[in-house]
Amino acid sequence: MNKPEVPDFLKNIRVVLARPNHPGNIGSAARAMKTMGLTRLYLVEPKDFPNEHADALASGAVDVLHRAVVVERLDQALADVTIAAALTSRKRELSAPLGVPREIAPELVEHARAGEQVALVFGNETFGLSIEEVEQCNRLVTIPGNPDYFSLNLAMAVQVMTYELFSHVGVGVDYLREEGEAATQQEVEGMCGHLGETMERIGYFRRRNGERLMRRMRTLFNRASLQREEIDILRGFFKQVLRSTDPHDAPGDE
Amino acid sequence: MNKPEVPDFLKNIRVVLARPNHPGNIGSAARAMKTMGLTRLYLVEPKDFPNEHADALASGAVDVLHRAVVVERLDQALADVTIAAALTSRKRELSAPLGVPREIAPELVEHARAGEQVALVFGNETFGLSIEEVEQCNRLVTIPGNPDYFSLNLAMAVQVMTYELFSHVGVGVDYLREEGEAATQQEVEGMCGHLGETMERIGYFRRRNGERLMRRMRTLFNRASLQREEIDILRGFFKQVLRSTDPHDAPGDE
Repeated sequence: MNKPEVPDFLKNIRVVLARPNHPGNIGSAARAMKTMGLTRLYLVEPKDFPNEHADALASGAVDVLHRAVVVERLDQALADVTIAAALTSRKRELSAPLGVPREIAPELVEHARAGEQVALVFGNETFGLSIEEVEQCNRLVTIPGNPDYFSLNLAMAVQVMTYELFSHVGVGVDYLREEGEAATQQEVEGMCGHLGETMERIGYFRRRNGERLMRRMRTLFNRASLQREEIDILRGFFKQVLRSTDPHDAPGDE
Repeated sequence: MNKPEVPDFLKNIRVVLARPNHPGNIGSAARAMKTMGLTRLYLVEPKDFPNEHADALASGAVDVLHRAVVVERLDQALADVTIAAALTSRKRELSAPLGVPREIAPELVEHARAGEQVALVFGNETFGLSIEEVEQCNRLVTIPGNPDYFSLNLAMAVQVMTYELFSHVGVGVDYLREEGEAATQQEVEGMCGHLGETMERIGYFRRRNGERLMRRMRTLFNRASLQREEIDILRGFFKQVLRSTDPHDAPGDE
């Protein structure tokens, strides 16, 4: 299977960092974004940007940093946006529906796919988003976590949220799966027959319930989703057992 | 709604970092774990631990670091484990079923809930897990991401995987929702009637399709999941409009 493409519509989803304090977090956020197929970063009044430390932590995602749009106020980053999702972990006046990323992500992806501009809005490391900033958003997202210790770093929050979005985009990991040839039922059955014959021949069924043993083995091999190559290895092994125990053959004879 | 407890069975899930190079990553991983309710950290042959930088990045999760178990080989960290999930992003010989976190997480949570020991196994920052290490695991997990730039930092991978687990634990964010009183259908209907009466009185329906207008308004307010308090504000407003336009009252009269 070929490596899939990142869908073009992901360019309709932007990450907005409002008043970030630490350049390192901006860099880590860029890396997190790009790892999940996003490239458009808006920075509202960053304390220190551009910055070398940000570049260092962005690793291979410095292109995202270099194309970042720096603005003075949040409304400038949201001017053409239809859905702005504010990340918050505080109890708030219910200004917009509150959901976990899993609930909100499908809707965001759907709007971006339809060509609308979508924003994920993250607040300052220490203070989060201000009430005024939250009010400019029409969705509230809260990442679930330990109620007694919720200390999600800014870039970590970007990573979790963008991971969640990417999970709904439809680019899976199938291209990383080893493409083995799955064995057919007939092949599995043939192998099981071969196993039974072998067990029988070496006297393994004696004083045992052979039928029950074979049923267990059959269940095991059916559950294991065998590959053709594995069938070959097993049958080769059984053949060798039969050969080694045949009085007409010398043991180990090929 | 009260703050929920982190379920006790999460102590059955451990994070294993195999041969981590950078103490900072160990600290960030501890913080990521604790944020998602996990506390048991195993370190296989860490290059530099304990370490001040690790403590600094762990922030409020230094307790996780201080209780971390340091071992020499991966099998020592997995001795009592029934399910060991190896995090990998490389194409591998199919030694175990490969899934994305969302597919694998429910099974891991279920086994931990049943009292079994479960491990999430992460490899070295540069080289990932070795073949020998992967072979000691019975699940493979691949975090989906940009096929052209997959550069997930070690602690970020811990964050994503533990977030995914926590999402299946059943501790939501309901306790953070503002507990407003939802309006009943009758209340919404009453408010819509009040709106219609107001529009009618000020002549807004003249030369317009009043029925259609009201249908749109009703749809809007039904969709919006109104709170009782919002109904009160709207009805107060309509009342004031009616009063202000009543020829018998002076405008602005209470």
